[in-house]
Amino acid sequence: MKAAYFDGKNMRLDNNYHDPKPGEVLVRVNLTGICGTDLEILDGYMAYDGILGHEFVGTVERSENPDLIGKRVVGEINVGCGNCKSCEKRMDRHCPNRTVLGILKRDGAFAEFLSLPEKNLYVIPDSITDEQAVFVEPLTAAFEIKEQVTLQPSWSVAVVGDGRLAQLIIQVLKLTCPNITCFGRHKSKLKSLINIGVKIKIGIEKSDEQFFDLVVEATGSNSGFADTMKLIKPRGTVILKSTIASRENLDLTPTVVNEITLIGSRCGLFKPAIDALATGTVSIDSMIDSTFPLEKFQEAIQHAKNLTL
Amino acid sequence: MKAAYFDGKNMRLDNNYHDPKPGEVLVRVNLTGICGTDLEILDGYMAYDGILGHEFVGTVERSENPDLIGKRVVGEINVGCGNCKSCEKRMDRHCPNRTVLGILKRDGAFAEFLSLPEKNLYVIPDSITDEQAVFVEPLTAAFEIKEQVTLQPSWSVAVVGDGRLAQLIIQVLKLTCPNITCFGRHKSKLKSLINIGVKIKIGIEKSDEQFFDLVVEATGSNSGFADTMKLIKPRGTVILKSTIASRENLDLTPTVVNEITLIGSRCGLFKPAIDALATGTVSIDSMIDSTFPLEKFQEAIQHAKNLTL
Repeated sequence: MKAAYFDGKNMRLDNNYHDPKPGEVLVRVNLTGICGTDLEILDGYMAYDGILGHEFVGTVERSENPDLIGKRVVGEINVGCGNCKSCEKRMDRHCPNRTVLGILKRDGAFAEFLSLPEKNLYVIPDSITDEQAVFVEPLTAAFEIKEQVTLQPSWSVAVVGDGRLAQLIIQVLKLTCPNITCFGRHKSKLKSLINIGVKIKIGIEKSDEQFFDLVVEATGSNSGFADTMKLIKPRGTVILKSTIASRENLDLTPTVVNEITLIGSRCGLFKPAIDALATGTVSIDSMIDSTFPLEKFQEAIQHAKNLTL
Repeated sequence: MKAAYFDGKNMRLDNNYHDPKPGEVLVRVNLTGICGTDLEILDGYMAYDGILGHEFVGTVERSENPDLIGKRVVGEINVGCGNCKSCEKRMDRHCPNRTVLGILKRDGAFAEFLSLPEKNLYVIPDSITDEQAVFVEPLTAAFEIKEQVTLQPSWSVAVVGDGRLAQLIIQVLKLTCPNITCFGRHKSKLKSLINIGVKIKIGIEKSDEQFFDLVVEATGSNSGFADTMKLIKPRGTVILKSTIASRENLDLTPTVVNEITLIGSRCGLFKPAIDALATGTVSIDSMIDSTFPLEKFQEAIQHAKNLTL
């Protein structure tokens, strides 16, 4: 099959990459997203070589379950070993021996086909387009916050970052918390948020410091963490969404002195994300910047990198 | 009065240091403890000059309230401005304009006298000796954990560190959680813990990694944080007790990937700590290593430093 292969340093198009291994469901990739994590892996965040890509929507080509064939699916990207304590508790996402689609020991979606176990797949209803469905995986990361924190409508909430994940998070938090401020760098990206009543700020003012009950760090940069720590109120809660390739002299002293709670947060359950897209609770209008064929992956990645500048 | 004055670089005995300012309760210091934070301030952790010392028990010499005179007291060390949002919520401890006894813009206990507002003072019952009472302040830091986390008896708990604070924390956690392991460096310090059924370990074994539901970091060192992150289970909770003078290349990526909750934790309410000493729920037997007169403060500090090696 055709695939964009990353050898640990560079990516190249391989027209004769081996097909995904048998024994799992074979999915033809319809659309795949480029995530900040992909860009970090390309920058050396993890010692990964193989096919990148973990946000996808595809069509089932081959499956032992005939009902699945021809269905459009999205997929939970973590595959547990099935034999450990985490897997027993259905926490495959935290299995120490897991593989992760396009991230850890498992080829991903920058290819014609991918494979996953049947239990990882979710059939997408017809009311959701491919363009929406490709956002299910990042949207689960937004909904995960609701699984970890009991949001209070009275809270002043800040989201640091204005990328795609930040925008999805804001939409999800807005379902519970009316008072949200987004600290971003690109006013152009944030227009749609103004329409739903989110305050937009470029830069932190004195009155913002230690003002917010909840701050979500979704920038993917060191300065994002520093900004977050400026905004959070004593005894407030910080959600950490970015996995960052390099950290320099990060100081946790304010965390102790101000008794901050920092919660690491990854992707979450698929069902709430699919429902939110099906009912229109979350909108991804205007969030696809460009679409490229697989052959133009270099151009696509450069485009994604430029968007994060 | 006599006081050990720290000029920001060195400490020296001053026989004619000015008396504490009037308008507050004047307390003659009976005993004072040397805390890890004191040693960090001496190492440059905060730009502080003045009298150090914030763990004390004393006797009231002068007060507008005649009932207080002659009473033995301990004291909440944070003095809020009284006019901000934190103070309104009785969170003087988090007032942005606060002074802190022996730590921030307020002379401390390494002196003949100190002063604090009356509302900061707690009268100590006769059943508590001075030697016990001087532990009230660090003991509040142990009880603070119970205010921040709902402890589960089923949890496997690790405490990293074997200093005085770690030992107090272990005694408090043991009231709820029977399964506690202390990761320390000095077996001699830990004998008393074995008697109450705590497992003692010098060094982390493979089977300890990602094993613990709750890990308390109470070492005051960078390596303590790294050890903590090795021990904590995915989705576990970490309590951060150390304020550390220097942090180098601290990596929060595992916090995100394993969805860890990190909770900064400082000192807490005085009432539970006083009650625990009065009832014997917490014992400080054998926790006073040596006692020195004020004049021998250099020797005392060197002794405290040696104990942390």
